[in-house]
Amino acid sequence: MSRLPACETLLLAPRGGVLHITLDRPDSRNAMSLQMVAELRAVLAAVRDDRGIRALVLRGAGGHFCAGGDLKDMTSARAQGASAYQELNRAFGTLLEEAQHSPQVLIVLLQGAVLGGGFGLACVSDIAIADHQAQFGMPETSLGLLPAQIAPFVVKRIGLTQARRLALTAARFDGHEAKRLGLVHFVENSPQALAERLDEVLAHVLCCAPEANAATKALLLASDEEPLAPLLDRAAEQFAAAVTGAEGIEGTMAFVQKRKPAWASEPPLEQTPPTSGI
Amino acid sequence: MSRLPACETLLLAPRGGVLHITLDRPDSRNAMSLQMVAELRAVLAAVRDDRGIRALVLRGAGGHFCAGGDLKDMTSARAQGASAYQELNRAFGTLLEEAQHSPQVLIVLLQGAVLGGGFGLACVSDIAIADHQAQFGMPETSLGLLPAQIAPFVVKRIGLTQARRLALTAARFDGHEAKRLGLVHFVENSPQALAERLDEVLAHVLCCAPEANAATKALLLASDEEPLAPLLDRAAEQFAAAVTGAEGIEGTMAFVQKRKPAWASEPPLEQTPPTSGI
Amino acid sequence: MSRLPACETLLLAPRGGVLHITLDRPDSRNAMSLQMVAELRAVLAAVRDDRGIRALVLRGAGGHFCAGGDLKDMTSARAQGASAYQELNRAFGTLLEEAQHSPQVLIVLLQGAVLGGGFGLACVSDIAIADHQAQFGMPETSLGLLPAQIAPFVVKRIGLTQARRLALTAARFDGHEAKRLGLVHFVENSPQALAERLDEVLAHVLCCAPEANAATKALLLASDEEPLAPLLDRAAEQFAAAVTGAEGIEGTMAFVQKRKPAWASEPPLEQTPPTSGI
Repeated sequence: MSRLPACETLLLAPRGGVLHITLDRPDSRNAMSLQMVAELRAVLAAVRDDRGIRALVLRGAGGHFCAGGDLKDMTSARAQGASAYQELNRAFGTLLEEAQHSPQVLIVLLQGAVLGGGFGLACVSDIAIADHQAQFGMPETSLGLLPAQIAPFVVKRIGLTQARRLALTAARFDGHEAKRLGLVHFVENSPQALAERLDEVLAHVLCCAPEANAATKALLLASDEEPLAPLLDRAAEQFAAAVTGAEGIEGTMAFVQKRKPAWASEPPLEQTPPTSGI
Repeated sequence: MSRLPACETLLLAPRGGVLHITLDRPDSRNAMSLQMVAELRAVLAAVRDDRGIRALVLRGAGGHFCAGGDLKDMTSARAQGASAYQELNRAFGTLLEEAQHSPQVLIVLLQGAVLGGGFGLACVSDIAIADHQAQFGMPETSLGLLPAQIAPFVVKRIGLTQARRLALTAARFDGHEAKRLGLVHFVENSPQALAERLDEVLAHVLCCAPEANAATKALLLASDEEPLAPLLDRAAEQFAAAVTGAEGIEGTMAFVQKRKPAWASEPPLEQTPPTSGI
Repeated sequence: MSRLPACETLLLAPRGGVLHITLDRPDSRNAMSLQMVAELRAVLAAVRDDRGIRALVLRGAGGHFCAGGDLKDMTSARAQGASAYQELNRAFGTLLEEAQHSPQVLIVLLQGAVLGGGFGLACVSDIAIADHQAQFGMPETSLGLLPAQIAPFVVKRIGLTQARRLALTAARFDGHEAKRLGLVHFVENSPQALAERLDEVLAHVLCCAPEANAATKALLLASDEEPLAPLLDRAAEQFAAAVTGAEGIEGTMAFVQKRKPAWASEPPLEQTPPTSGI
């Protein structure tokens, strides 16, 4: 088990191969502070090479996911000048890049405010589950600001056609519309239904082999960015390594023997409630 | 106020920060003539650096948006030879490139024929509002021709998967299908509903800061084309410039003071009917 | 008429400008064997320059489209070592690249299993028609393997946002969901409805000029990969060639004369049932 960093803005609870991360600044609707950015980056780095952590579940405390950037950080940056704003802004983009490329399956549970930076975080998830009443939007331009770091992730998530309307009108929309736009995969009508959907999704993720999932995620992300033929060459190498590796041997043998593979039959390790740090 | 060019094929009506442009060749269902291409390009150029014009609303006179290329231009190109066709065709692509990158929010109202070149114009809008009975399609290949200049804009608009079926079958479809395909954002069932939707959309656009919207639009367009990390670096610089600039200061102050920012509280300047030229 | 290769794993039936190809290994749900890959590639190559063959219709025998890779090939590769797996895998990717760029309109009829490699084949079609009960999915990671060659084609087909969820959960889904995800264009509730939809689609394809369709398909595919301005330059050249070529002259003349162009009025050549080889 990887050693998790001590965190003040996050609750961390690893159990059953899954790390549950709760943004825990409910008084400010989990506004993304510089400290929270740093702590999230430290958590991602801590589990990066740990295939025992197969999924990350990210949610917010107090009924909101994340309402965007933190105004106090903005205020203190103001005292320091424009370059402080620039660094503050870019740090969040770095978090988005790192979360996008996390080898784990990143699942987000979206309730309440999913605005600005929170909207950006939702856009780098592998699986997004939204409450029907969640409030999505990019309010930046209505404040004279830019959705600067999140813009490319929104375009990649839902395409230019939808992104341009949403950003240039500062539109607000709910969970049903988020599903229609392809931003989230599931929309649910109650906290109970959200929890059940999460259980179902996690069960499916845990039926997939950890190394195979990490390699597949990397291939999918590369597909948007690399020329096709060399990517296919590399993919074929990785396929051969997988099929002759421990997971491929176990997986195909389990298939022939009509049993679950080892990675799909581990019981959850513990059912501890979320705690801060480890 | 920018000085608008005199136009024979367009009606121009600036009011309340919005320039209303009407394609005005109703006898040919607003077929896109070389002259119309040149006049549209001149209008876009005239307002390009004018942040007082915050949105462009493009529609067609006489119940149709635009039925495609103009046959008379085709005929006269025939007399001149293949290179004349090539120039004629490429000029329309240049218009599409320039309209795509217009700093203003480009809104299209789509009624009647939205075919060929008209289809292409719809594909470079930021916000598309369609009548349910509008007729969309790329008839080119059924005429032995190619949707040559519009092909890349259609793929960018609705993706390769839908574009290939539509182009290779010369399929016709209505406003509801256009929304389902992600080509338009809104579909309405009456002229009254179209007008109300336009008012609503314009109200939202005018709540967004002019410079912030122009910069955001450029970032969104760049997201499809530039490598991510340097784009995020540039975006962070632009964010710092925005937050310390006039719009950012006014916007965040208005937010704290729970009032509308200056750019959202300007009354419409005038309610003049559309006229040709200025 | 192009000379078609003799095939053991495919049934081939050219009629009326359309080549019907049936994957014919029903005992293994048309699993994609190395031989089948080679025969499909040979068929695509044989018709590549034959504009008399205007569409390819690909389906599976025995109620399934294709259940994925062939386990016997996997077993014999095991005896040969990892490089044999790599070649086996890459060969399928080459087939996908070639099928994607086929000048003909590629139509797939999807029934039963559309899994793994079969899923990949569906992703390179121009028009996909699914039975409502078809079973789609990428089971690879649940077997400890990677959807290696198909990953880029899935991302291009339905976008990263949907592809990542499907691949990382090995999700199964039906024809209706396949349409909602944008993977297929039509979903039908009976074999009769599938057949009628195919007839309708073929009728539309055959109204489009053969050379124009082939050039348009190439432009659409290039749109995702080439810089815009030079692509538009090339498209303008191709437009001029088309409008002054045989198809453009016939098509515009037929339009003026209010008759069908020659390519749309050819009767089907023959109504032979599918046979193996020619």
